[in-house]
Amino acid sequence: MTTATFTNLVQSDLRRVEDLMRAQAAGHHPDLIAALEHLISAGGKRLRPTLTLLVGKMLGAEDEPLITLAAAVELLHTATLVHDDLIDGSLLRRGIPTLNASWSPAATVLTGDFMFARSADMAAQVGSIRVMRLFAGTLAIIVEGELAQMFDGPGFADRDAYYKRIYAKTASMFILATEGAAALAGVPEEMIQQARCFGHDLGIAYQIVDDILDFTGEQVKLGKPVGSDLRHGLITMPTLCYLEAHPDDADLQTVIAGGVLGNDAVEGLIERIRSSDAIAVAAGEARRFARSALDCLERLPVSEERMALRELANYIVERDF
Amino acid sequence: MTTATFTNLVQSDLRRVEDLMRAQAAGHHPDLIAALEHLISAGGKRLRPTLTLLVGKMLGAEDEPLITLAAAVELLHTATLVHDDLIDGSLLRRGIPTLNASWSPAATVLTGDFMFARSADMAAQVGSIRVMRLFAGTLAIIVEGELAQMFDGPGFADRDAYYKRIYAKTASMFILATEGAAALAGVPEEMIQQARCFGHDLGIAYQIVDDILDFTGEQVKLGKPVGSDLRHGLITMPTLCYLEAHPDDADLQTVIAGGVLGNDAVEGLIERIRSSDAIAVAAGEARRFARSALDCLERLPVSEERMALRELANYIVERDF
Repeated sequence: MTTATFTNLVQSDLRRVEDLMRAQAAGHHPDLIAALEHLISAGGKRLRPTLTLLVGKMLGAEDEPLITLAAAVELLHTATLVHDDLIDGSLLRRGIPTLNASWSPAATVLTGDFMFARSADMAAQVGSIRVMRLFAGTLAIIVEGELAQMFDGPGFADRDAYYKRIYAKTASMFILATEGAAALAGVPEEMIQQARCFGHDLGIAYQIVDDILDFTGEQVKLGKPVGSDLRHGLITMPTLCYLEAHPDDADLQTVIAGGVLGNDAVEGLIERIRSSDAIAVAAGEARRFARSALDCLERLPVSEERMALRELANYIVERDF
Repeated sequence: MTTATFTNLVQSDLRRVEDLMRAQAAGHHPDLIAALEHLISAGGKRLRPTLTLLVGKMLGAEDEPLITLAAAVELLHTATLVHDDLIDGSLLRRGIPTLNASWSPAATVLTGDFMFARSADMAAQVGSIRVMRLFAGTLAIIVEGELAQMFDGPGFADRDAYYKRIYAKTASMFILATEGAAALAGVPEEMIQQARCFGHDLGIAYQIVDDILDFTGEQVKLGKPVGSDLRHGLITMPTLCYLEAHPDDADLQTVIAGGVLGNDAVEGLIERIRSSDAIAVAAGEARRFARSALDCLERLPVSEERMALRELANYIVERDF
């Protein structure tokens, strides 16, 4: 399945979103314009602005503030990736060089800050205090999640902590996209909460699938080695599921204890997780959240946007395992 | 002159501002709470929240949103210092270790981001779209100014560029403090513009004086070597004034050309600037902006807060040269 089916309805709006993102650097230093262009062209699936646009249109939000919010959400997402890649020292993202691969840490920090500032300004332009507070709160949740991960250190194997982490890392931004769009539409609070629930559960499902793909994907497609989370001592859903079935795997216990495995031992552990039931169990967990997301969606008005959102939810859990 | 005279009116409010700043880390990770506590205790003169409080009270703003705005302004200021010190590799600020002196770059970037997020949330809590846009726009101006300085590189000797840089670095935040407070008070647009003008001119005066003190201060008080800007190739007002009177100083021309001077040559150049008329000429420039700030202030209502603001403006230009 391609992403085309569910983006059809918002194709021209998505182009306006990208134009608006690019316009944030207009009149600024040529190097800054080039950096933003590089980051925007690197693209991605634009899931977050697509969610914003579809939820907003489904609930009757006006075009212009909706497009501004969608651009704010995607620029905020891009800004967090810029600081993330710097912090992790990542040189590639989706096979394309990261900003920190060619720029100094100082310029990379400031470019991320500039994008935070421009996305905050767009969120303010939308003209809703509620959206603005949601936006600022989301940034705080994301950053605090990264700090918690840093403080917890590698090898932290705990399901609650995992869910908290992927809420902060991914679901919070999906919530900003869906709750923000609903708030903008000015629908009753109950509907805003359904939109929020849809965004939350979809975001959790999306991140679990991402964490599965880190084990089952091909290196070429991933743009990084298979099992890279585990190689960095990060315990995600597939590893948690594997741990529950094999609590006495000595290599995994070493990782959990914060130890470092030799290369052969890491490869062996990744292979055991890949070929175990843990992948299917984790996929079941992702589908459970996707179904729960669809339950929330069902309580929102029937529309072609709702059909597209249903497709989007299915696409998210049916990506190549 | 101590700061006490003009802070008398807002002493208890300033304590509430600091409490609110500290509360931003409540419930978060102990290390984050400790970091924020360290940064807030490091203190400073609290000029920006004092400006916010005095302007707001002078114009009849309500206490609670005013205190929230003052805390947002000071936390934003502190956050920019955290990223600045990281970028400059500074290990001390006001004689106290910076965050990056003991924390990893990653933790420092994220702590700064967290403070941006919390200050943005406080700005949103104030409940005014105008204040929120002013806040986001200020962050963009500050960051873009730092990027421009980085792109321009050392040795850039241009009066317009200097004014643009200190507007971005300092005056923009003073404007946020004064225009934001006036906007919150809901006074007519003309008065808001006078408050903005007051903040702008006062901010420019403040930064020129800071740049003079970098030459005339004592190392112990500065917490860094005398002439540290020039040592980093940064051309500020005293150097610009010296350059106008001594266009053929060979050492200065070397700095402007981006060259690096030996230690003796730097010390000699700093000493020539210190003992030249350039200091008095630069001080005259600062006083000119302070007078212009007072002209704007005169157009705002007579009140004890206005008297305190006049004292504050005088204090800023009469600090030890």
